[in-house]
Amino acid sequence: MSAELVAKVHDEHHFESTDFVKDVVIGMADGLTVPFALAAGLSGAVDSSVIIVTAGIAEIAAGSIAMGLGGYLAGRTEVDHYNSELAREYFEVEKFPEKEKQEVVEVLQDFGVSESSSRSITEEMSKDKEKWVQFMMRFELGLEKPDEKRAGQSARNIGIAYIVGGFIPLSPYIFIHTASQALLVSIGITLIALFIFGFFKAKATGQAPWMGALKTTLIGALAAGVAFGLAKVIGGKV
Amino acid sequence: MSAELVAKVHDEHHFESTDFVKDVVIGMADGLTVPFALAAGLSGAVDSSVIIVTAGIAEIAAGSIAMGLGGYLAGRTEVDHYNSELAREYFEVEKFPEKEKQEVVEVLQDFGVSESSSRSITEEMSKDKEKWVQFMMRFELGLEKPDEKRAGQSARNIGIAYIVGGFIPLSPYIFIHTASQALLVSIGITLIALFIFGFFKAKATGQAPWMGALKTTLIGALAAGVAFGLAKVIGGKV
Repeated sequence: MSAELVAKVHDEHHFESTDFVKDVVIGMADGLTVPFALAAGLSGAVDSSVIIVTAGIAEIAAGSIAMGLGGYLAGRTEVDHYNSELAREYFEVEKFPEKEKQEVVEVLQDFGVSESSSRSITEEMSKDKEKWVQFMMRFELGLEKPDEKRAGQSARNIGIAYIVGGFIPLSPYIFIHTASQALLVSIGITLIALFIFGFFKAKATGQAPWMGALKTTLIGALAAGVAFGLAKVIGGKV
Repeated sequence: MSAELVAKVHDEHHFESTDFVKDVVIGMADGLTVPFALAAGLSGAVDSSVIIVTAGIAEIAAGSIAMGLGGYLAGRTEVDHYNSELAREYFEVEKFPEKEKQEVVEVLQDFGVSESSSRSITEEMSKDKEKWVQFMMRFELGLEKPDEKRAGQSARNIGIAYIVGGFIPLSPYIFIHTASQALLVSIGITLIALFIFGFFKAKATGQAPWMGALKTTLIGALAAGVAFGLAKVIGGKV
């Protein structure tokens, strides 16, 4: 999600949410929706809450591992990717300096700087190889240096948010043994939770809060409705 | 995932996979893993494949809607975010041109361009407001113009990839009525599928293919193992 990659070079009032908030949003959005829909779907096919709780917990375990570990590996991959591109740029600057200078000139010209000015700044910039490479990384390749420690933290945050989110729709089935009754309570608390979550998610990402609350709630309701209908058709009452 | 935001300004041999491939990778990674783990988990608690198929299809419906629609809305949010930042930059360039010029000067100085050169190129650049704003968007805020049509395509691709991925681990339960037997077949074909998928995913994202195959397989196996263990503890044999 590139909307999350807002770079904050200067201290302006452009929005940037913290990485922690982003992780929680990613984990909780799916954690609230998928276990909710799974439990609702199974309620259309089985009477006993025990099966639903079992399925729900299996799903929460699977989902949190897949998302958390997936997030961790994506973070590691990003670091590796950055480092390999960095090594390549250093190599190119060393071996083909004229070609790389020409690329800087072209980047600058694209932004309306005249050719002669572009050439003279390129000469200035190329005196410091490190800054020259940083320029290429950022302005030619659009890559920002990723934080090496982020991958592990991110995995933990996303995984925990998924688990917390997932237990909200599942909790009624733990306490109410008739699935159809638990379903009604689950729908009630989960739609409220989705609405509140959607509101703050939208606020945190600089969007219109009420619209965000509505969108998030509708996705959850749609997923649960489709899952319920499909499960009823396929499973009948087991 | 910022590794996916590799900007391709020039025709160099830096890697960029297609948007389609990225969508399929995102959808299939979770589609193979979560329904696999859910079905494996339920196999530890129920004897009948019918319940597992019902739960699996409910999960696939819920997951594909959550991911697909989630992807669509994330794409729309990205477009909205870009447009609102763009409007803000136009406003600032209009109202506070000196402040914005100073920011361009600082960006250039950060890259080793002298102050006097930075000032003279900034003056050149600021003659064309459109290019000036583009420079600020890209180099100060790190934002690239998102493709408006992508959101819908991306939703469809991710959703379908999730469904295709999800039916691989689920298919044995459709044909084999004893859950414990279906589980063995599901483990076999899904681990193979995860390995092949991980291999091509790594290739497509410029990573070491065998290592990628191993990582992807291990995440799936871990998620399924934990889900199985938890479901066995909680659900017993229903």
